[in-house]
Amino acid sequence: MKELITALPKGRLLEPVIGVMREAGMIEGDLNIETISRKLVFTDDVTGNSFLLAKPKDVPAYIEHGAADIGITGKDVIMEHGKKLYELFDLGAGYCKMVVAVPESSGIKGLDTIPEHSRVATSYPNITQQFFARKGIQVEVIYLNGSVELAPLVGLADLIVDITSTGRTLKKNNLIPVAEIMNSSARLVVNNVSYKTKYKEIVGLLRKFEEMGGESRDGKNILSGR
Amino acid sequence: MKELITALPKGRLLEPVIGVMREAGMIEGDLNIETISRKLVFTDDVTGNSFLLAKPKDVPAYIEHGAADIGITGKDVIMEHGKKLYELFDLGAGYCKMVVAVPESSGIKGLDTIPEHSRVATSYPNITQQFFARKGIQVEVIYLNGSVELAPLVGLADLIVDITSTGRTLKKNNLIPVAEIMNSSARLVVNNVSYKTKYKEIVGLLRKFEEMGGESRDGKNILSGR
Repeated sequence: MKELITALPKGRLLEPVIGVMREAGMIEGDLNIETISRKLVFTDDVTGNSFLLAKPKDVPAYIEHGAADIGITGKDVIMEHGKKLYELFDLGAGYCKMVVAVPESSGIKGLDTIPEHSRVATSYPNITQQFFARKGIQVEVIYLNGSVELAPLVGLADLIVDITSTGRTLKKNNLIPVAEIMNSSARLVVNNVSYKTKYKEIVGLLRKFEEMGGESRDGKNILSGR
Repeated sequence: MKELITALPKGRLLEPVIGVMREAGMIEGDLNIETISRKLVFTDDVTGNSFLLAKPKDVPAYIEHGAADIGITGKDVIMEHGKKLYELFDLGAGYCKMVVAVPESSGIKGLDTIPEHSRVATSYPNITQQFFARKGIQVEVIYLNGSVELAPLVGLADLIVDITSTGRTLKKNNLIPVAEIMNSSARLVVNNVSYKTKYKEIVGLLRKFEEMGGESRDGKNILSGR
């Protein structure tokens, strides 16, 4: 068996993802989460598989350039990245929705009442631009790295596009969702060269993921087409 | 006196910057750092001045669009943002250098030994692109949101452009600086409309900063030119 290099997402998904990797046999040594999260790269002594820890938003770069064979990150991040990445599996974790949200006081009830040339703050400029273009609504997109929900409060933007899971942050800032753009969850992505050169290993992992439950979604075509 | 809205940088600079704001008389109420850092926006009851907390990288957006009158962020962030922002004062804090760094094992000793078409990982794609273009070296820039020092370790990039203050992170990852791109420190930036409509308040603050020490740099021309 060839060793695989996996890009793992730092943050709240790291611990559950490590659990899944262990259950799938990718990690067999006694690495614990504390040891792991202090490092940027680590190798499992038993299986020889290596792992690198990256910001979820950076996982696509590692996959695209082949620094990792496979990786796990959110569908939202994959879509925003834009470039074609093979997406093999929906891990059924880290569920969230990307929504258009407006201040309660704005009186906006849906997309059809968004004034033209509204300013939209978001950390997902590509998805946002494409979404409003498709809907035929002209908006000005303002890119923010974080605290997007602050933008309408201080008059930086009229509305926002952001991800939400419980809806608590929106509510706390008197924002209400008026449209859904997409659903997101953690996905297994693969480098297209690795998918050929390490096909057996990657498909083996995929089979284990399937046995463990969850659903193989967009990737189904890629697999059945071979 | 008109009230000012100030964009403050979250993170390690927040506490010293709050101290400076208090010393300059911008905050007179008994707000403490714990209360402040849990909020995104707060108003000082005594002076009526408001403050918003943003990622350092987002401060230019708040200033550019006039959601804040003034803001404090790093020179590195201002340069990367690229658009013209009035920069009034060097707070003489948060000093760091932006450098080109290479793996010790690469044998690269300076810019003249960087191979053409090298891949450069960085969180500062604009500055990086411009720097290498000016030097006449063709490189491929790979944008990363974080952990840039990981890129050469895993073969994602041949070198990096990143900020460093103590040099510890570089050393830990066997990276050595081979060129300096710029020095950075915390700067006071101002919205160009606010600079006219709240001129007295902003210049008053600037005078206090000057009395407190530090140096008025790029802003000197703006001030003496009026």
